[in-house]
Amino acid sequence: MTETVLSSARREVVIGFERPFVIIGERINPTGRKVLAAEMAADDFSRVETDAMAQVQAGAHMLDVNAGIPLADEPALLARAVKLVQSVTDAPLSIDSSIVAALEAGLAVYEGKALVNSVTGEEERLESVLPLVRKHGAAVVAISNDETGISEDPDVRFEVAKRIVERAADHGIPRSDIVVDPLVMPIGAINQAGRQVMHILRRLREELKVNSTCGASNISFGLPNRNGINGTFLSMAITAGMTSAITNPLHGDIVQTCLAADVMMGHDPDCRRWIAKYREPPAPGSEGERGRRAGGRRRRRG
Amino acid sequence: MTETVLSSARREVVIGFERPFVIIGERINPTGRKVLAAEMAADDFSRVETDAMAQVQAGAHMLDVNAGIPLADEPALLARAVKLVQSVTDAPLSIDSSIVAALEAGLAVYEGKALVNSVTGEEERLESVLPLVRKHGAAVVAISNDETGISEDPDVRFEVAKRIVERAADHGIPRSDIVVDPLVMPIGAINQAGRQVMHILRRLREELKVNSTCGASNISFGLPNRNGINGTFLSMAITAGMTSAITNPLHGDIVQTCLAADVMMGHDPDCRRWIAKYREPPAPGSEGERGRRAGGRRRRRG
Repeated sequence: MTETVLSSARREVVIGFERPFVIIGERINPTGRKVLAAEMAADDFSRVETDAMAQVQAGAHMLDVNAGIPLADEPALLARAVKLVQSVTDAPLSIDSSIVAALEAGLAVYEGKALVNSVTGEEERLESVLPLVRKHGAAVVAISNDETGISEDPDVRFEVAKRIVERAADHGIPRSDIVVDPLVMPIGAINQAGRQVMHILRRLREELKVNSTCGASNISFGLPNRNGINGTFLSMAITAGMTSAITNPLHGDIVQTCLAADVMMGHDPDCRRWIAKYREPPAPGSEGERGRRAGGRRRRRG
Repeated sequence: MTETVLSSARREVVIGFERPFVIIGERINPTGRKVLAAEMAADDFSRVETDAMAQVQAGAHMLDVNAGIPLADEPALLARAVKLVQSVTDAPLSIDSSIVAALEAGLAVYEGKALVNSVTGEEERLESVLPLVRKHGAAVVAISNDETGISEDPDVRFEVAKRIVERAADHGIPRSDIVVDPLVMPIGAINQAGRQVMHILRRLREELKVNSTCGASNISFGLPNRNGINGTFLSMAITAGMTSAITNPLHGDIVQTCLAADVMMGHDPDCRRWIAKYREPPAPGSEGERGRRAGGRRRRRG
C-alpha cells in the first residue's frame, strides 16, 4: 500500500491507494493565461494569491505552482510565487518548471516536503532533477516519456516509468516518493487514449506499485463540452487506480466527481464527507433545525 | 465478444462488450409512483405514453415496462402497456414483472425480441421463467440472488449468476441471451458496495463472459445529491465492464455520463456522437453559419 506523504509547514497530505483522491489545483500557471503572465512579469502577484485561495476553498488538497514566462527570470518568479502561496494557504505545493534552476529556487524557499513537477526519462533531466529531489527530501512527478518522445504504446510508457523508478532508487529516492504521470493524450485525436491510460494506470498500481497523477484536462482537448468528458475521465481513471490529478477544482463538477469516486472506492467511511457537503439544510421549524438552533444558543451561553 | 441482440418490430439494439453503453429507461414503473399507479389502475395510460416518448427523446435506447400494482390485473395491464409503448416508440422493451403470468402476457403481445426482467437463482423462478424465455426467443435479466437471499459476498453472487447461466443453457438459452444484474447495494449502508460491484462486474465479463445491467439508482439510496453519486457510479461500473443499466435518462447528467464513457472506452469512433450532441451552433455570420444558410437556400430552391 504505497503512500506518498507531502507537507507544508502546517499540513500533511497523503497520496495513497487506500486514501481519498488528491486534487492538485492547476490554476497557478501562466501558460495560456496571458493576463496572469503579464501581471507576474510586471511583479503583480495578486492573482496568484486569489487563485491559491479560491482553489483551496473549492476543494483542492494541493496546489501546483508554475511561473513559466518566456524571457522572464523564472527562478526568481517561481521562488516568489512559492513563498506567497505558502503564506496564504496550508496546502502542500507541487513546484512545477521545465527549468532545473527554477525548481531549485522554488525548493530552496519551500517549507515542508514538496512535490517536484517533474522528471522525465530523459538522461539529462534524470541526472539534474533526481539529485535535487534527494537533497531536499522531496517527492517527484515522473512523466513517462524519454529522448524518443511519447510512445503511443502504453506498455512502452510503462517501461519508461519503471526505468525512472529504478534510476530514482539509485539516487536513494524510494518508489513511494515517485508519482507517475502516464501522459494523457487528447481522445479527440487518439480514439484509444482512454483505454491506453486505464491500462497503464492498472499496471502502475499492480506491478510497479506507485502512485499516479496526470494533467486531467488534456483528455478533452479540441472537443466541445470539455467538462463533461473531464469528469467522466477522472472517475474512470480513479477506477483504474489513479490516486491524484492536476486539474481545475473551479471547473464544472470536478470536485463533486472526486468526492463521489471516494464514496464508490470505499474511501469515505460512512459517506461522512459526502453527507457533510451535500446534505440539505434542515427546513425551518423541523426537528433538525430546532436542535441546531438550540445547540447554537447553548454555545453562545457557554 | 458477447452480444445480446434485442429488437422491436423496426429497430435492433445490441448490448455488447465493444458496443456503446445501453441505457434502459426505468420510468414506466408504478412502484413508488402513486399518481401513475392510480392512473394505470383506472385505465388511464396517458402518462405511460408520454414517459415512453420523453425517455427515448432524452437518450434511452430501450425502455423497461412494469405494471406492478397491488390487487390489479397485472397481466392485462402489462400487456396493454407493452402494446401502447410499442405503438409510440421503436425502442426494444424490457418486460418487467415478478409475476410469471404477467411476463407471459407481455411477451404474447410483444413484437420483436424482448428482454425479460427477470429470473433469479430461485428454483421455482428458474423453472417457470426460463421455458418462457426459450419459447419466445427472448433474452433475460438474471438477478444474482437465490433462496438464501442476497449475499454480501460478491463471489457468492457471482456463483449464483454462473448457476443461472448453466441452467439457461440446459433450457437451450445461450449465454449471449443472459444479461446479469449483480445487484447494487446502497453504499450509504454498505461502505464496500462500490468495490463489490466492480469486482463482480469484472468477473462477469472476464470469466463468465456475459453482458450486465443493474438498477443504477440503488447505489445512492438514502444519500443527499443522489445524481452526483449515480453518474459517477455509472462511469466507474462501465470501466469495470458493465454494458447496460436500467436508469432514469431524464435525471441529471446520466445520458451525458454514458456518452462520455463511450468516448473514453473507444466506443464512439472519432467522438462523432459526442461532437454531434455537444458542438456549439456556429455564431451568426461565421463561415459555418453562412455555409449552412446558403445550403438552406439552395435546398429551398431545389
